Amino acid sequence: MQNYIYKTEFEVRDYECDLQGIVNNSVYQNYLEHTRHKFLLATGLDFAKLHKEQIDPVVYRVEIDYKFSLKSGDKFISYLNYERKGHLKTIFNQYIHRKSDNKLILKAKVIVVILKNGKPILPDVFFDAFEKYKT
Amino acid sequence: MQNYIYKTEFEVRDYECDLQGIVNNSVYQNYLEHTRHKFLLATGLDFAKLHKEQIDPVVYRVEIDYKFSLKSGDKFISYLNYERKGHLKTIFNQYIHRKSDNKLILKAKVIVVILKNGKPILPDVFFDAFEKYKT
Amino acid sequence: MQNYIYKTEFEVRDYECDLQGIVNNSVYQNYLEHTRHKFLLATGLDFAKLHKEQIDPVVYRVEIDYKFSLKSGDKFISYLNYERKGHLKTIFNQYIHRKSDNKLILKAKVIVVILKNGKPILPDVFFDAFEKYKT
Amino acid sequence: MQNYIYKTEFEVRDYECDLQGIVNNSVYQNYLEHTRHKFLLATGLDFAKLHKEQIDPVVYRVEIDYKFSLKSGDKFISYLNYERKGHLKTIFNQYIHRKSDNKLILKAKVIVVILKNGKPILPDVFFDAFEKYKT
Repeated sequence: MQNYIYKTEFEVRDYECDLQGIVNNSVYQNYLEHTRHKFLLATGLDFAKLHKEQIDPVVYRVEIDYKFSLKSGDKFISYLNYERKGHLKTIFNQYIHRKSDNKLILKAKVIVVILKNGKPILPDVFFDAFEKYKT
Repeated sequence: MQNYIYKTEFEVRDYECDLQGIVNNSVYQNYLEHTRHKFLLATGLDFAKLHKEQIDPVVYRVEIDYKFSLKSGDKFISYLNYERKGHLKTIFNQYIHRKSDNKLILKAKVIVVILKNGKPILPDVFFDAFEKYKT
Repeated sequence: MQNYIYKTEFEVRDYECDLQGIVNNSVYQNYLEHTRHKFLLATGLDFAKLHKEQIDPVVYRVEIDYKFSLKSGDKFISYLNYERKGHLKTIFNQYIHRKSDNKLILKAKVIVVILKNGKPILPDVFFDAFEKYKT
Repeated sequence: MQNYIYKTEFEVRDYECDLQGIVNNSVYQNYLEHTRHKFLLATGLDFAKLHKEQIDPVVYRVEIDYKFSLKSGDKFISYLNYERKGHLKTIFNQYIHRKSDNKLILKAKVIVVILKNGKPILPDVFFDAFEKYKT
């Protein structure tokens, strides 16, 4: 099992499957984003409210290794961890495991930068909240 | 062929098909919305700019009759017409036909109300622009 | 509260919201479909398996009244009821209520026809399963 | 400008934008996939037909660098190139540029493996078709 600080459970919805009968690639980015936003909420940060304050976390780079496909009816657990990289970047390491047998479905590294009025700022808003969540 | 004031062409994208191998129901609402927004643009109205001015057209009611399914590789034409209903409502009558043989895929009636700061307003912004487009 | 035979709970995911900051119209059809498919599962019917047996429930007509918008962070309950109409049609009456205050978000009438190898069949597969669920 | 063997043009659809008012991250994977499938079609390969022959290209790994955001109303060009890697992998190098000023929006490396009845096979079906397209 992965080392993680947050996890949440999902189930595949049939409209997320494509004509190959498996969850479409792009949908996993939805799962990963929803996991991050739920983690943010758990630490007291509300993505929609941040946007109203002109604070916009944006994805800078994503690497996803697809190991196995999810299908109709599958339940799965989405795990998240984070680290700081350099001054500006926050890395979310994310993993999805099928619930029934714990099989690794994918692992992802999602690098996020925070923009304020369109310019990158230090991710203090993240790490101040994350540190409190930890303890 | 339907009576229409605006039309635009699409092609099915494979990720829009679900595990039945046909375009998923909900995706047709995307097609219908994109057609309306392109029509608005053609009349000089920009949906995103309207939102910044707190003017938000919202869908009040939709009726869709699904006649036949679109599949991977299909091209289709989306037709639009409009009428006013009562004080506040704008009705968009929309039709989708498969391009290869003109087969009717669906017809829809989409009733839109315009909100300003969350309250319904007369749809003058629509009809002033639509009238100019007509002539 | 609506009369219902099945209900399930959802939460809005941020990627489901559009540039107006509210859940996009088409996304509600995803919610409604997922509710129907979960109801089918609860009665012992698996949408993906049915497809493999060439039995494909398809949406024939949909009517949706949008009463109020869902936003980022909202939780909601999706209610479902059904009735038979004529020989071939199954009507799903569906309602979505915001969880926090029970506010009605939308009501929908979704008419489904079952195709076998592309031709409509009597919906016995539905009603045999639904009757057992009832008791 | 990138070196490319195939390009196709898109326009942003408003429903693809999220509450930040920009195209949602996951949607770019839809653009990238649609570009690959159009390229396949141009070389004589039909993704849906391949699936019916139990030949399923699947994404094995994706790396995406997001350079700048697309917004409502933007038109853009999606460029594609490919290379072989090892025995089993096909790499698609993909780039998206905004049409108005040629600004680089993102670059992506998408590694695809072809499964037949669930097992990886040599990507000859790809390269036989691609070579003919080239000449």
